[in-house]
Amino acid sequence: MTEDPTPRQKERGRRSGGRAGNQSRAGHAAIDQMPWRIPVNPDRPTEPLDAEGVQALHRGAMHILSEIGIEFLNPEALAILKQAGCRVDGERVRMDEDFVMEMLSHAPDSFTITPRNPDREIVIGGRHMVFVNVSSPPNAWDLERGKRTGDFETFKEFMKLTQYFNCIHIAGGYPVEPVDIHPSVRHLDCLYEKLTLTDKVVHAYSLGAERVEDVMEMTRLAAGLSHSEFEARPRMYTNINSVSPLKHDYPMLDGAMRLARRGQPVVVTPFTLAGAMAPVTMAGAVALSLAEGLAAIALLQYIKPGCPVAIGTFTSNVDMKSGAPAFGTPEYMRATQMTGQMARFYKLPLRSSGVCAANIPDGQAMWETSNSLWAAVQSGTNMVYHAAGWLEGGLIASPEKFVMDCEILQMIQRYFEEATFATTPEDIALDAIREVGPGGHYFGCQHTQDRYQTAFYSPFVSDWRNYEAWAADGGVWTPERAHRIYKQILAEFTPPLINEDHREDLYRFTAKRKQEGGAPTDF
Amino acid sequence: MTEDPTPRQKERGRRSGGRAGNQSRAGHAAIDQMPWRIPVNPDRPTEPLDAEGVQALHRGAMHILSEIGIEFLNPEALAILKQAGCRVDGERVRMDEDFVMEMLSHAPDSFTITPRNPDREIVIGGRHMVFVNVSSPPNAWDLERGKRTGDFETFKEFMKLTQYFNCIHIAGGYPVEPVDIHPSVRHLDCLYEKLTLTDKVVHAYSLGAERVEDVMEMTRLAAGLSHSEFEARPRMYTNINSVSPLKHDYPMLDGAMRLARRGQPVVVTPFTLAGAMAPVTMAGAVALSLAEGLAAIALLQYIKPGCPVAIGTFTSNVDMKSGAPAFGTPEYMRATQMTGQMARFYKLPLRSSGVCAANIPDGQAMWETSNSLWAAVQSGTNMVYHAAGWLEGGLIASPEKFVMDCEILQMIQRYFEEATFATTPEDIALDAIREVGPGGHYFGCQHTQDRYQTAFYSPFVSDWRNYEAWAADGGVWTPERAHRIYKQILAEFTPPLINEDHREDLYRFTAKRKQEGGAPTDF
Repeated sequence: MTEDPTPRQKERGRRSGGRAGNQSRAGHAAIDQMPWRIPVNPDRPTEPLDAEGVQALHRGAMHILSEIGIEFLNPEALAILKQAGCRVDGERVRMDEDFVMEMLSHAPDSFTITPRNPDREIVIGGRHMVFVNVSSPPNAWDLERGKRTGDFETFKEFMKLTQYFNCIHIAGGYPVEPVDIHPSVRHLDCLYEKLTLTDKVVHAYSLGAERVEDVMEMTRLAAGLSHSEFEARPRMYTNINSVSPLKHDYPMLDGAMRLARRGQPVVVTPFTLAGAMAPVTMAGAVALSLAEGLAAIALLQYIKPGCPVAIGTFTSNVDMKSGAPAFGTPEYMRATQMTGQMARFYKLPLRSSGVCAANIPDGQAMWETSNSLWAAVQSGTNMVYHAAGWLEGGLIASPEKFVMDCEILQMIQRYFEEATFATTPEDIALDAIREVGPGGHYFGCQHTQDRYQTAFYSPFVSDWRNYEAWAADGGVWTPERAHRIYKQILAEFTPPLINEDHREDLYRFTAKRKQEGGAPTDF
Repeated sequence: MTEDPTPRQKERGRRSGGRAGNQSRAGHAAIDQMPWRIPVNPDRPTEPLDAEGVQALHRGAMHILSEIGIEFLNPEALAILKQAGCRVDGERVRMDEDFVMEMLSHAPDSFTITPRNPDREIVIGGRHMVFVNVSSPPNAWDLERGKRTGDFETFKEFMKLTQYFNCIHIAGGYPVEPVDIHPSVRHLDCLYEKLTLTDKVVHAYSLGAERVEDVMEMTRLAAGLSHSEFEARPRMYTNINSVSPLKHDYPMLDGAMRLARRGQPVVVTPFTLAGAMAPVTMAGAVALSLAEGLAAIALLQYIKPGCPVAIGTFTSNVDMKSGAPAFGTPEYMRATQMTGQMARFYKLPLRSSGVCAANIPDGQAMWETSNSLWAAVQSGTNMVYHAAGWLEGGLIASPEKFVMDCEILQMIQRYFEEATFATTPEDIALDAIREVGPGGHYFGCQHTQDRYQTAFYSPFVSDWRNYEAWAADGGVWTPERAHRIYKQILAEFTPPLINEDHREDLYRFTAKRKQEGGAPTDF
């Protein structure tokens, strides 16, 4: 697998091309799911901070940036920031509020990303909210096989789930790390699969110049774009994390600068775990996170004013008994909401996550995930990472959890629909109320008949039957139902259309770069 | 069991009295839980309706009340409403907006209820939010015994859980219906247990004059109050449901009027299932629910101006494929939020619920319950019925679910604490950030040491260990962990203190009323 795309892969690629005229293949039967859409969040965000609180967090972040400083472990970045007038002391950079705010004024508050299938274009910003698959767990877990190290076959399974579900908008990082592929060529194999198994927006890990350049080139080739077409608008993105507290490392900065220069979006997401890499107080952890995020964004806006960026939050807390990270906690929810307020203050799109500490897809997993997903809604998050499939604080990707999470994501999409709270005369339905009268029922009336097929959210993994009907049908608990759906999705999966010339170009580039040895692995 | 309290019960009552001086018994060891408190919700509610939408729902409800009318299947209520100037046509009553709004102007926007232990006094209204145990399922389910019909022993188990958890503020209806006790005396046995196994606010079912009067008398006796002391302030409450659409039945109205006359609170909760007993459109179902609720509240305010009342929402939707009721859906959430806006418009306290359609305490149960509990938070709900223990659309009470739900309730209580979003200089912690610097860690710094014990929510059923530690300890899923906690709580349960004279009075009254045959069962 590490040498070049396998015969099966090549074969599938050709089959895809051969079916290029077949437009009916979108019909999936495993479940009856919602159509693709970019959800728009109509709710006023939940705002725990008053105006004074917003100012206090802003002043805190600015104090960190101007007085304490952030380390940039990248000589190029240091040189640029020095030229920009920042105070550079070794690797420590201090930047004043005026500079930071001027740089932020260049950043767009909203941008699009257009993948090889333009119908899958997404919007990051405003009231839009898009969902990203689980990214980066080293392990997988499912009901049949238990926990095991990530591999390429499992990676591909998750890519198929990512493509299948219309409520997943972005094929983010690797859903599991395929450790059976050598790190030097892993990005080549993974991106080839990602770009052919899905037609959604893809992501590049900022793990060295070669990887970043390869992924940009592969994204360009898969879409059949010229270099200038590629750079004319966002086509893919990267997400970088700071090394909290107060550090940005070499490869993350390098990748971010490479993308920014070519007009590709960068999401900057500090990972500030209160009590470990950040203050034990939530506002302190948020202030630290903001300072780290804004520092990198200021650098990128200086390099390429107006380049698309988003600020991420990954502020949670540890379990003070064990030091273990906790997710979906009350503190996590408030940190996400506070960061949302600050993102709007800085006019930046916001990324947060769908996360939990649970090890298996049980009740705990779902209350923690519900907490984090509703915090995403309440915070006005624009991009929800790990929205489906995450377990064990990000150490496990689970297909059952993926399927279960997609039920929640669909419910959020339905929750956003105006039909759930519209108050037109037809909605208030006085004529139907008069017609049915006291003690009657609404099943048969025309008002119901006209609407019953689309009136309510229709679930695909939830079982709404009564206990006896459920028990007579085997008494299957949710994870097992999700397991069956996941298997069925894989069994019937057909890859999306791809232009055969583009696929050939992509294949040749992948093979060539693998032959060359891929990327150095001494990072 | 149906003849009189059993020897074991009498014995326990005496033991309780004998320990009256023991103040240390509050220390429970099964779990480390939060102390008793009345949570205060600091969030601005989520408001899907704009001002026009609020007016549209108000006009809709008023039109239903004045033009379509509501049936009151109670001659006394009909006579009173006729006297009040309403248009009464047979059992159909039409009331004008002026009358309704004048009656609503008498209703308090907030009130207290004081049970026999005054430390357990609760507030219903304002930003306060209290949690009620699961009420009224006919069946119980647990991991060991599966689904079975409710009985008195199981009723007592749930009463112990209700008392044990500090996050449960009210011992509401029967957590399971004890069908092994004859309906004529069931309320006597149940209330004796409720009033001795708990010291929290209790509820009376409005199921006939005798039951209501018995429960008021038992509540009075258990607290050692004179009749005038009992009536001087709310001591217990009832919850009535309309028979949607557009009907209030005899016993519910009778009980409500009896309580109102004695200054005891009445919660009016229509059960409007969109597509079945209510329009298929959510705003229509909410308008119908509001009209039914306001009709009963207007009656009570005419009878006793200023009597404490609350409006409830139980608006959800059916599964249009099967007709089965669904709970915790996106539509349920919006209906709850809309009713919250209208409750504030009418200046009435709001009741909603913690509900799900799931049959067992799995992932589906928890995402549906999370949806309904967060909708309660977002709607500004003051009283959350069924907040712990509900399954199968209310047909099952489960102790595992009870324990799991209490984890969410505690997280909501923590989420409300200002510490999670405070922005004082100590919270923003610039000194700690400077001290730790880039690449350091916060575990050891003084700022953390001063706060780590109370910095974060501490769970009791969630397992935050990593997969390997969790697996090495048996790999126990959440329902099984909850089952063990429930068993441990029962094993170590000690009833709350009760004044022995009051308990004797209560016991004698209960025995006498049972000897008299209790209440008629021809309702």
